[in-house]
Amino acid sequence: MRMARVRTPSGARPALLRGAEWREIDELWAARPRETGRSWPVAGTALAAPSEPRVVVGMSHNGSPSERARPPQAFLKSARTVVGPGAAIVLDEGIGSIAVEGELALVIGRRARHLSPDEALDAVLGVTIANDVTAVDQVALDSLFSQGKNGEGFTPLGPWIETDFDQLALSISMELDGVVVAQSSTALLAWNIVEQLVYLSSIMELGPGDVVLTGAPGTTVPVSAGQACRITIDGIGALENHTVMGGSRASVLLVDDVLQED
Amino acid sequence: MRMARVRTPSGARPALLRGAEWREIDELWAARPRETGRSWPVAGTALAAPSEPRVVVGMSHNGSPSERARPPQAFLKSARTVVGPGAAIVLDEGIGSIAVEGELALVIGRRARHLSPDEALDAVLGVTIANDVTAVDQVALDSLFSQGKNGEGFTPLGPWIETDFDQLALSISMELDGVVVAQSSTALLAWNIVEQLVYLSSIMELGPGDVVLTGAPGTTVPVSAGQACRITIDGIGALENHTVMGGSRASVLLVDDVLQED
Repeated sequence: MRMARVRTPSGARPALLRGAEWREIDELWAARPRETGRSWPVAGTALAAPSEPRVVVGMSHNGSPSERARPPQAFLKSARTVVGPGAAIVLDEGIGSIAVEGELALVIGRRARHLSPDEALDAVLGVTIANDVTAVDQVALDSLFSQGKNGEGFTPLGPWIETDFDQLALSISMELDGVVVAQSSTALLAWNIVEQLVYLSSIMELGPGDVVLTGAPGTTVPVSAGQACRITIDGIGALENHTVMGGSRASVLLVDDVLQED
Repeated sequence: MRMARVRTPSGARPALLRGAEWREIDELWAARPRETGRSWPVAGTALAAPSEPRVVVGMSHNGSPSERARPPQAFLKSARTVVGPGAAIVLDEGIGSIAVEGELALVIGRRARHLSPDEALDAVLGVTIANDVTAVDQVALDSLFSQGKNGEGFTPLGPWIETDFDQLALSISMELDGVVVAQSSTALLAWNIVEQLVYLSSIMELGPGDVVLTGAPGTTVPVSAGQACRITIDGIGALENHTVMGGSRASVLLVDDVLQED
């Protein structure tokens, strides 16, 4: 089943896919969502990010089997970085090198704390596609990742939530300006999604709508302003966004001075 | 002016203090909040956390003037860690040493991005008190702070938002079980709140309700389960919470095994 949030003049509305229609429902997280009777044709209907999470958490160094030698580790991203399909990724002037990272994202469906491996998948409403945009040079300056992970539009998400998915292996590809630049599979993730959920729910509470960025299995690609990035995951769909040049950080002399001294 | 969120059977409601009454308003973030006509006597009325933020961001190594030698650095906490006055701080079994950190917290009042020093304070609705609870041994295991900062109840906040405040020096004290264990001032922070806002808004968007934990100026104190922690800031009030022993992390054999190998 596919679930999405349809853009309307009065805000994003939750919906289920039935045939060629998005049918409005009362609540994405309900055990049995109820249709309201309102609907939109799939063709021509714009979608928002399929979730408005309170928590966005990503897995660090999880992109290849060899990284299993290190303990799992996670980072938080600001929930304000989440944007939907088609939205701009804003690259501040002076921010340095930027990478887009194509990832499978989990959307949590209920309160999740201290999950056992058997319970883990039950806590997941479904999966979607995420672009974990990263300012690479800023990560080198800031070991806590705050400078590198939280630019505007740095977490494109969508286009919808797919509730039926292969938990171990989904093909994922990245295109820049229409050219395939990476092709991989979530089977290469160091820690699989059950292990990630057990780990994450042991260190923090997760709840309805929260998003887990599962790691980039060789799908990290440098970008510059003015490029279109399209991430495709088999069985889900494709998420496309574009990069734009944003404001200058020049007014922040305070910070620039400090960083130059370092 | 003081603003709070009053606990009611139908959820937390925003309110303003007038005399000995909390008077309900439509919206904490409105330019001119409107009273609804509903009110509660201050005596006997329980308060929730004064904000339900999307972003909780804390300043790292900001607790003494000497730390100004290092660049400012920030960490995100999960918004789900925020709890109100009187709520429990849950210490998972096996989590190791815990510290409470008494801090001045800023509550953001409007969208804030690339603030100049002149604009910074205008973006702040007011200040409140925060306890930036930290699992110290977990920070040593996880350089990204995710394991150390995100336990349940790890960000007590309150009791209310004070919109009139001294931006440079507020006295702050910590009591454990009724005994004063730390006494300090926000004047000792390495980067002051204007500088913090300029820095943070240069690396991420902040918005209404978001919370900045400004750093612990010598107000970091070890605690164990079953203790009461009271933080007082002159001109604001006092925030009291207590620690309780929570569930075991024992089911997470996966992670324990890995960490033991490390």
